[in-house]
Amino acid sequence: MSKSRTIEDYVLDAIVLFNQGYETVVIRGTGNEISKAVDVFNSLKSRLGEGVTIDSVEIGSDLKSKRRISYIDIKVKRVY
Amino acid sequence: MSKSRTIEDYVLDAIVLFNQGYETVVIRGTGNEISKAVDVFNSLKSRLGEGVTIDSVEIGSDLKSKRRISYIDIKVKRVY
Repeated sequence: MSKSRTIEDYVLDAIVLFNQGYETVVIRGTGNEISKAVDVFNSLKSRLGEGVTIDSVEIGSDLKSKRRISYIDIKVKRVY
Repeated sequence: MSKSRTIEDYVLDAIVLFNQGYETVVIRGTGNEISKAVDVFNSLKSRLGEGVTIDSVEIGSDLKSKRRISYIDIKVKRVY
């Protein structure tokens, strides 16, 4: 996630990917942007309603230049 | 979650709850503190290692005075 891109930008990305035929889209946020990833999911959910569902939510941490950085991976599935 | 309390404070809370006999502890974060909730889980995990596992991770949003606030609920289980 990039600070210059809004929640709506990511929501549109996900909708485009679904329209291209992808069945699942992973929303990943790291560090302070974990909250933003959850906001993206909630916004996508309010747009598509029953059309999307959570496949899985994974949390953990990665070592990056000796610092531990938390992440979240929200796997969203299209429902037809 | 409160801004005046550190990640370590919450980690100690969870350890105390487990020692009191609770089998599961839910770490809840809302809004910008979602990232902090994930940090708490990662710190707890690095302390207790195989002694804890994720039972479930739930994300969603609540309406609070007409604003939609995202949340995360990380349900952590003690493993014996």
